[in-house]
Amino acid sequence: MDLSKRCTAEFIGTFWLVFGGCGSAVLAAAFPEVGIGLLGVSFAFGLTVLTMAYAIGHISGCHLNPAVSIGLVAGGRFKIAELAPYIIAQVVGGIAGAGMLYLIASGKADFKLADGFASNGYGEHSPGGYSLLAGFVAEFVLTFMFLLIILGATDKRAPQGFAPIAIGLGLTLIHLIGIPVTNLSVNPARSTGPAIFVMGWAVSQLWLFWLAPILGAAVAGVVYRSVFEVTDAK
Amino acid sequence: MDLSKRCTAEFIGTFWLVFGGCGSAVLAAAFPEVGIGLLGVSFAFGLTVLTMAYAIGHISGCHLNPAVSIGLVAGGRFKIAELAPYIIAQVVGGIAGAGMLYLIASGKADFKLADGFASNGYGEHSPGGYSLLAGFVAEFVLTFMFLLIILGATDKRAPQGFAPIAIGLGLTLIHLIGIPVTNLSVNPARSTGPAIFVMGWAVSQLWLFWLAPILGAAVAGVVYRSVFEVTDAK
Amino acid sequence: MDLSKRCTAEFIGTFWLVFGGCGSAVLAAAFPEVGIGLLGVSFAFGLTVLTMAYAIGHISGCHLNPAVSIGLVAGGRFKIAELAPYIIAQVVGGIAGAGMLYLIASGKADFKLADGFASNGYGEHSPGGYSLLAGFVAEFVLTFMFLLIILGATDKRAPQGFAPIAIGLGLTLIHLIGIPVTNLSVNPARSTGPAIFVMGWAVSQLWLFWLAPILGAAVAGVVYRSVFEVTDAK
Amino acid sequence: MDLSKRCTAEFIGTFWLVFGGCGSAVLAAAFPEVGIGLLGVSFAFGLTVLTMAYAIGHISGCHLNPAVSIGLVAGGRFKIAELAPYIIAQVVGGIAGAGMLYLIASGKADFKLADGFASNGYGEHSPGGYSLLAGFVAEFVLTFMFLLIILGATDKRAPQGFAPIAIGLGLTLIHLIGIPVTNLSVNPARSTGPAIFVMGWAVSQLWLFWLAPILGAAVAGVVYRSVFEVTDAK
Repeated sequence: MDLSKRCTAEFIGTFWLVFGGCGSAVLAAAFPEVGIGLLGVSFAFGLTVLTMAYAIGHISGCHLNPAVSIGLVAGGRFKIAELAPYIIAQVVGGIAGAGMLYLIASGKADFKLADGFASNGYGEHSPGGYSLLAGFVAEFVLTFMFLLIILGATDKRAPQGFAPIAIGLGLTLIHLIGIPVTNLSVNPARSTGPAIFVMGWAVSQLWLFWLAPILGAAVAGVVYRSVFEVTDAK
Repeated sequence: MDLSKRCTAEFIGTFWLVFGGCGSAVLAAAFPEVGIGLLGVSFAFGLTVLTMAYAIGHISGCHLNPAVSIGLVAGGRFKIAELAPYIIAQVVGGIAGAGMLYLIASGKADFKLADGFASNGYGEHSPGGYSLLAGFVAEFVLTFMFLLIILGATDKRAPQGFAPIAIGLGLTLIHLIGIPVTNLSVNPARSTGPAIFVMGWAVSQLWLFWLAPILGAAVAGVVYRSVFEVTDAK
Repeated sequence: MDLSKRCTAEFIGTFWLVFGGCGSAVLAAAFPEVGIGLLGVSFAFGLTVLTMAYAIGHISGCHLNPAVSIGLVAGGRFKIAELAPYIIAQVVGGIAGAGMLYLIASGKADFKLADGFASNGYGEHSPGGYSLLAGFVAEFVLTFMFLLIILGATDKRAPQGFAPIAIGLGLTLIHLIGIPVTNLSVNPARSTGPAIFVMGWAVSQLWLFWLAPILGAAVAGVVYRSVFEVTDAK
Repeated sequence: MDLSKRCTAEFIGTFWLVFGGCGSAVLAAAFPEVGIGLLGVSFAFGLTVLTMAYAIGHISGCHLNPAVSIGLVAGGRFKIAELAPYIIAQVVGGIAGAGMLYLIASGKADFKLADGFASNGYGEHSPGGYSLLAGFVAEFVLTFMFLLIILGATDKRAPQGFAPIAIGLGLTLIHLIGIPVTNLSVNPARSTGPAIFVMGWAVSQLWLFWLAPILGAAVAGVVYRSVFEVTDAK
């Protein structure tokens, strides 16, 4: 399928990841008495990826995340020539998802962007008050493991058809661990979407949510390729 | 299998969706101390579809939703000639599900239909107080994405057998996002069931839960067909 | 595999269903601050079946429930001659599961059987105070739907290998709906286990949790067979 | 694949199990208002295994647990000669996972190892105050059942590709039952990781979390092999 259609799929998928994941956090997490909590938000983020991986995996591969695309290049699974259009589609999709969420969320009288709008942060903007170092390490390690799951579950030797379950629920798991630390990103496009609306601190802390996930993903790609990949030519 | 048997399956399946999904909300969501909350209700709605898709998917296709049937027509996956009987079976099934729930729920002394009986609503009848516009946009967008998941996960190029997981958990995800906005429909038959019992505001707001989901579904059908479908004749 | 080995599997599986499902309720549901609630108990019951269906499905078919065995006879999927040994193994397994749970639960100083020990009940012993009629209808309808899910998901036309997911998560769904009504049975062996330890009201109300599930299952077997089954001989 | 690479996979996988499972407990379980609770921790532990089983199952078999490796030897599925290197890799991985968690968790001002750091314990160190006997029985029985699930779901007669779902969600179920009793181990490597950091009582109670899981696993291996295994040579 041609690149423009695959980028359309990445746009829609990343729209869904940000609209759905951040939407569950903004709209439903703290609903009085019966709110879904961080457990519900963790499932929401994971299920955006699980659903899209079955819906558009056969179209674009369903990366939905610049760090994933870069990790797949590092792991020898994706062409570097297609990296830029994929990342652009993902970031624009993430911003569109945040915009659609803003349209709905602001339909409630007491909505305030100042409540954070599901932005990622560290230090005084970490949900649990975790330091910059803790945030960087968490994002690096969790993205590293996310890519190992992706590379392993889509390996030819793994059971076919199950990768979306492993990867989607892997993202759920990652959120179950790390939301208190940074509100959890592992995805620069997901971080950029809400930050564009919140501005201020959310934009000034955005560098960490590009740098740490991309580094973690790239290292994972190299590790999986060099340690666990079976070379066909041998 | 002949149309009457397929419509019987749609009747039973939509009965289950409304009885199970709305039942979890009415009976268990706010149970003191240990209630299942909106997270439990979200899983219940999704699991009605997941279970029925495996149980009757091979019989009727398991639409359980007029918007889904219309979206599948728009996407070229379902015959328009069978639309009316399917929708009738779904709506009657939804009303029957609400009736069975009423029979059980009213077996508790302090049960009151005035508590809402899991009806959908906007404005002052939105659980979180969201406006008509927010409700319309949420129902439109969430049904649009629901149909993209259905059309993508049942595409011939997607892994076979997994569609019920993607679609069922997709409906869970949709509820995790949107219950506070409209109590979440994306399904005119699901909205009609409880509204028939609550009457008054629930019936007078019902138009939105027919219009927005059907529009969202129809647009999704056209988009998937024109952008992502592979034409066999080429 | 010979009948004694299959009955051993049914014994172990029903042990697991009662020990795990009731165990989650007794030990973890109301743990202060962080208890798993009715949502966690619903997942626990469902996952006992999901895990056993993959672990022993190829040995005994993994019924774990006299109502299921009877429903499968009614649906033409199980030999009536093997019904008695299966049911005996299930009931003994259920009692053993409750016994093991008692051994562990009583290792806490303030444990009291009088708290109910996860027994099923109606009227004043219904968790939410639901009437006998509401309890009977709920158990009948939920077992009817449980059997439709089982018969449909194990139909030759359904995707192969997925039935344990549909059936296990179907039991989760059933608990999400009905725990407040009767503490939820749909399984005479599950009800008998704890009742034997609690005695008194739990035993005197036990008849409903044999009668309603068996009737619901038997009707479902007849319905599926006569309406949805494809006759090979045509 | 050669043994060193397989041990690398076991190291990474057990790192993930301890970092992710214990991490969710330490960082997110009791987060104010919206914490994930014991239900979220149960999903986190299960999903570490589900994700790794798809990611590295084709490399090392994904044991991640000395009791599992020993149970597989007892069940005739794993070579005794490879037991020592596997167990060493698992224990070192578990300690590394706890170390990484310490690095992140201590990035919050009020973090204290004295809160338990997700260590396992009995008697006065049991979360719910359960006795040594209750703890031993729970760990023995739950590991016994865990191994039955593993041996059954990976049996050649079981549906192929689904074992990681059964095993991962089986570990979730086991946690739903038993966290209040011992904080739940069924895995000596998981217990050793945090205990090394907490020292004192956590180390002096560690013997139970080696002994009971290994006994339970070994008995399960013998039972499955002798009762349910089909002998090829007949």
